[in-house]
Amino acid sequence: MHTIYTEMAISKKILLNHGSGGKLTHELIKEVFVRYFSNGSELPLTDSAIIDGDTQKLAFTTDSYVVDPIFFPGGDIGKLAVCGTVNDLAVCGAIPEYLSCGFIIEEGFEFEKLIKIVSSMARTADKAGVKIITGDTKVVDKGKCDKIFINTAGVGRISLKNENIASGINVKPGDKIIINGGIAEHGMAILAEREGLKFDTGILSDCAPLNKMIEQITTGNDAVKFMRDATRGGLATVLCEIAESRNLGIDIHESEIPIKDNVRGICDLLGFDPLYVANEGKVVIIVDPLYANRILEGMKKNELGKHASVIGEVVDDHEGLVAMETEIGGRRIVDMLAGEQLPRIC
Amino acid sequence: MHTIYTEMAISKKILLNHGSGGKLTHELIKEVFVRYFSNGSELPLTDSAIIDGDTQKLAFTTDSYVVDPIFFPGGDIGKLAVCGTVNDLAVCGAIPEYLSCGFIIEEGFEFEKLIKIVSSMARTADKAGVKIITGDTKVVDKGKCDKIFINTAGVGRISLKNENIASGINVKPGDKIIINGGIAEHGMAILAEREGLKFDTGILSDCAPLNKMIEQITTGNDAVKFMRDATRGGLATVLCEIAESRNLGIDIHESEIPIKDNVRGICDLLGFDPLYVANEGKVVIIVDPLYANRILEGMKKNELGKHASVIGEVVDDHEGLVAMETEIGGRRIVDMLAGEQLPRIC
Repeated sequence: MHTIYTEMAISKKILLNHGSGGKLTHELIKEVFVRYFSNGSELPLTDSAIIDGDTQKLAFTTDSYVVDPIFFPGGDIGKLAVCGTVNDLAVCGAIPEYLSCGFIIEEGFEFEKLIKIVSSMARTADKAGVKIITGDTKVVDKGKCDKIFINTAGVGRISLKNENIASGINVKPGDKIIINGGIAEHGMAILAEREGLKFDTGILSDCAPLNKMIEQITTGNDAVKFMRDATRGGLATVLCEIAESRNLGIDIHESEIPIKDNVRGICDLLGFDPLYVANEGKVVIIVDPLYANRILEGMKKNELGKHASVIGEVVDDHEGLVAMETEIGGRRIVDMLAGEQLPRIC
Repeated sequence: MHTIYTEMAISKKILLNHGSGGKLTHELIKEVFVRYFSNGSELPLTDSAIIDGDTQKLAFTTDSYVVDPIFFPGGDIGKLAVCGTVNDLAVCGAIPEYLSCGFIIEEGFEFEKLIKIVSSMARTADKAGVKIITGDTKVVDKGKCDKIFINTAGVGRISLKNENIASGINVKPGDKIIINGGIAEHGMAILAEREGLKFDTGILSDCAPLNKMIEQITTGNDAVKFMRDATRGGLATVLCEIAESRNLGIDIHESEIPIKDNVRGICDLLGFDPLYVANEGKVVIIVDPLYANRILEGMKKNELGKHASVIGEVVDDHEGLVAMETEIGGRRIVDMLAGEQLPRIC
């Protein structure tokens, strides 16, 4: 922690990597936000906070969306702003119910685009079964923001049986790790659009609300021990975070990780490791091994889980680290992302 | 509505005035956000939404803060981001409990400033008795946002007896209108700082969390029929909105409206009507006339209400309009603000 603080003290300025979802983001959260906001208590600034109620618990979360470009194959900033917050609630075991939305719009932004974004938000909210019930709009002078930024906050209800899913406190060696489909699609769709690649990659962002699928697999059983959506920082970051926070070893098998051929191709071409590329419709689920197949089969019946796969397991070895058996038969340690090459991916 | 839509269709682009809190903001909310998000139901996108629960109701609100400058006499963007959302919850009769915060930060922003802002948020939250429990940070390239933007969303609990305060459905002729102190201080403090006025105006923003004072005056009685904080658009906008929405007449008396001499002086000098200038620590309260004095006396015991004043009453005349008896003995209609001269005031 001291070296971290020193690193911040040396840079003295916010770097793009402080928003990457990787190491620098973690340091910023620990050293600035948690330090000042925790107020002596144990409240962590997690993706979703869980609020104790008299008769039930609430989950509460927020994200700001600054994605560039604002329209991309498979989605737009509005769809993303609904999916991201719905998914943050769903992966902590909550049923997402209500969203707020705060718009910061650059002067001169076309109404036509705003209406396209807002109607996309409405459609996505409808699909997810959530209601957008409060909002705010600020307009800033031309050149003082980039087109449009959207914040959504979300409130959901969480049952007592799900309250430990976000922390993964019940995860133990032997548990199986599942992902609901192909990785790296969102990041590569954004990149292809941004770079205006001359050839048609055909890659669509996987941006989707996962709450209905998650509700299906968590209802009526206690098998799900941990879930997290693999957004900024990709699959690798989720696995590194849970391995580190629970001090458990994780083994994954490269051959079992779903990835579409065109996504793999463009990653290879541009030199990106798909393990670290952002997804917006993928959830990592750690489950009791006895129920792993049942949950996998359940997921495959859902459109958003039809390519679901068991990609690895929690092991009683190399605590705090993620190891991957590669397709060519070797083994490598999967590290936490230090920086990120793709700012403004969400 | 049709003319409004036409006006939007003609402009085709977002104007600074769409963020003013005045007429164009109302049109944007009605014609874009409510149109697409209401989804056939009656959900209005009010400042705070009220969520029905099994045993209690929740209030939920959000605001983005883009104030420029980010540090100003009497506060900073962080203090503002906490006060604004706390006050939005409090004026709908809720007890604010939890906040989220979403930061959008420009690459290169100094850590020292970030820490100053974050610690100001922590102090203000502490003072208001709310907890900041979830957050998000995005960093955008230099030149793609202006220093720092902050979104806060807030959740509070609301008792059944207070659930009609936000709509003002029980307001009727004879009710008294109270404000808790001097107007136009926030707007003029920002302007003075922004313009770098050579002389020292001595004006501080009134930015403050009003929830404790409001809790005092709403506890143990049903006298409070409506409350709203007079932010963007000022006192006049709040009065015009309630007069129009409930189709009631409102009379106010200029001589009873508190305003500090230096604030009045700078408004005169620069040609601003203080009725329309933003406040960040002022609430307009409409109360049963039988309890008006008791509530006024209660407010005056609180530091934030010591200059409270009964400024007018609801009348059975000129429905939908606000009339002001001026200090020189005349009478004028107080119109809804068409535009605003002060963008990025909050």
